[in-house]
Parts: sequence; C-alpha cells; structure tokens
Amino acid sequence: MEFPSKFIENAVNEISSLPGIGKKTALRLVLFLLKQPKSQSINLSNAIEQMRLNVNFCKKCHNISDTDNCEICSNPNRDESIICVVEDIRDVMAIEKTSSFRGLYHVLGGKISPLDGIGPDELNIESLITKVKSNQIKEVILALSSTMEGDTTNFYIYRKISDFNIITSTIARGISVGDNLEFTDEITLGRSITNRIPFEKSLKD
Amino acid sequence: MEFPSKFIENAVNEISSLPGIGKKTALRLVLFLLKQPKSQSINLSNAIEQMRLNVNFCKKCHNISDTDNCEICSNPNRDESIICVVEDIRDVMAIEKTSSFRGLYHVLGGKISPLDGIGPDELNIESLITKVKSNQIKEVILALSSTMEGDTTNFYIYRKISDFNIITSTIARGISVGDNLEFTDEITLGRSITNRIPFEKSLKD
Repeated sequence: MEFPSKFIENAVNEISSLPGIGKKTALRLVLFLLKQPKSQSINLSNAIEQMRLNVNFCKKCHNISDTDNCEICSNPNRDESIICVVEDIRDVMAIEKTSSFRGLYHVLGGKISPLDGIGPDELNIESLITKVKSNQIKEVILALSSTMEGDTTNFYIYRKISDFNIITSTIARGISVGDNLEFTDEITLGRSITNRIPFEKSLKD
Repeated sequence: MEFPSKFIENAVNEISSLPGIGKKTALRLVLFLLKQPKSQSINLSNAIEQMRLNVNFCKKCHNISDTDNCEICSNPNRDESIICVVEDIRDVMAIEKTSSFRGLYHVLGGKISPLDGIGPDELNIESLITKVKSNQIKEVILALSSTMEGDTTNFYIYRKISDFNIITSTIARGISVGDNLEFTDEITLGRSITNRIPFEKSLKD
C-alpha cells in the first residue's frame, strides 16, 4: 500500500502489528479516528502508554495489579492454603466471576508450548514450587485450559509437586476438551471448580 | 468485566471504542502488548497521537497530505482539467494503484446519507462547485461506490454542475452494484475508469 502521508503510514504499520489486525482494518481504524475529535486519539494513545509503563504484577501470585500485592492476595477473607493455578489474568477474571473459589491464584503467564518456544523456564513455575515447599499450602488446583499444551503443563507441574504432602486437584472436565477457559459459561465453570477431582484420578479418564 | 488494574481497564475501554473491536478483543490486544517490549506500545501510542495531531489535508483536493498541497495536486504531469470525485482517501489509493487515471482528485469526505445525519453541507461539495465555476475544468468523473448513498451523492453533484459547460461522466458499472470501490480488483477498477460513460446515459441504464 502507498500512503499519501507518512503519519498515516506509520500509524497503519503500528496498528497492523497487533494480532488479527491487517493493513486494511488498520487504515479503517485510522480514518475513523480522523473523523472523531482529537481528544479520542489522545486518550487512546495515553491509555496504551500508561498501561504499558505503569502496570504492575502482584509479587505473590503474578496477577496484574496496580500495587505490589493484588486485591485477591491482600484480602484477609481468602483461604491462603488453596492455590488455583491459571494461565493468565483472563482466567482469573473468569473464575472470580463465578464466585465459586475463595482461595488464592497463581498466574503462570502461559502454557508449556515447545512449538512456540515456551518452556517451563519462561513460566512462573519455580515460584509456585517455592510456595508449595513453604508448607503453608494444603491444595493446588490445576485450572489450565483443557488443550494439549494445558495438559502438558498440568502434568509437568504435577510431577514437580507430587512429592510434597499436598492435595493436587484439577478442575472437573465439565468444559469440553479443546475449549478455552475464557469462553466457558459461568455455571459450567463454577461447577467444574466445585467438582474438582484428584489429579491421579484424572489421569485414568 | 471487572479488571484487576485501572490501567488495564482504561486501555481496554479506549481500544474497544474503535469500530469492530469489543472488550474481549481489546483485552486480548492489551495482553499481547504486555508480552511485547515496552517500545512497541510506546511506538504505537506515539504513532496514533502524531497521526491525529499532525495529519494535514490538501487545500486543493481535500486528500490527506503532509503538506498544504498533496503529491498528486503538485505534480505538473497530471491533467488539471479532469477531476475525479471520490469518497475518501482509500478510493484515491485504490484508483492510483490502477495507473489508469492521470487527472486530479476531489475527496468528498463521505457520501450523502440522511440516516447517518450526513447532508451535502457536511461534505466538500461547495469547493468542487467553485472549482467547476473557475472554467479550468473540462470533465468531472463521479467515482463513488455504487450504493444507494453513492448514487444519491452522484445525482446531487450532477444537478449542481450540469449547467456549466463541462462533461460529467461516471465510472463504468463494471463493478458489481452494492460492492465497495475499495475492494474491487485492479483490472475491473482500471477498466471502469477507462470506459467511463456520460452521466446522462447512466441514468437510462
């Protein structure tokens, strides 16, 4: 594409570097912004910059947070002895919405996926094992999406923590195999938290 | 949706105010940016702000341009006596790509669309009539998308300029009715510029 303005070209190139947005869509978005008041573009621009520069991660659970300890970890009413292991912040939001879980989370930041170059060292697994070693944990719930990568990650973590004296459970397979946790309806997801089963049992299914 | 960080919430709200992007897609884009180097978000943010604040419009044809006169208008090899009337910059880019047109453009900035509250006064029609009155124009080519709104706009402009001693033509209906100019293939679009017909004749079709 040849653009009549380098500002347009630059904006289209940057916007189309986002996943799922091509050059035509980017140009459509740019023309939309040009028809709106300048304040909308400036607010959008500031929001993106502020988000990237100021977002913090909870030191305890690696969830996104504005402070060093996220709201969930610093809530005294939550059960510190149960830890739910999830892939990212969207899964925390999805489980919180069901109101079925009163423990804490541990956000891995992804799944083991050799094809994408993501091994165990790229994820927050080491800090999970440190937590388990501390002897204050009674149960670890593995709540990753039930895909190939999710199952691999579940099994990797299980092997690392199975020697310690804790219960390892996995959320019930009420959610269909291959589906993403994020898009499951609240009732199914809530029930799958309530009906979690020992990890050993899930291997026999 | 409840967000664990106000920076994330703010960014998701601003991004989802763009057309065709919902809150889930916006959150996916935000999480993507968080996994990339900070520089990517800052470049994106700057590109949007710079684009909106610095983009200029050509004073002659209303095309987007970095200077007061766009590259096309200031090119001495182009035929100033033929003006091609288009809806927006994407149509200029599409026609330029065919290399079938050596005249100048006039960008209306939209189509007459009463349902969207866009009347003739919202478009750059007055300046087109001033150009036609100046007696330096031999032909006006109406090249709007062949939709209801495009036809209405074509007819409105035709009535305003038909009293002057110029040829008014419309691009050949090689492009299918209801299709957008932007997505037509180059050969069809190029041919429809070459085979333009007098506007009077197009009314009888």
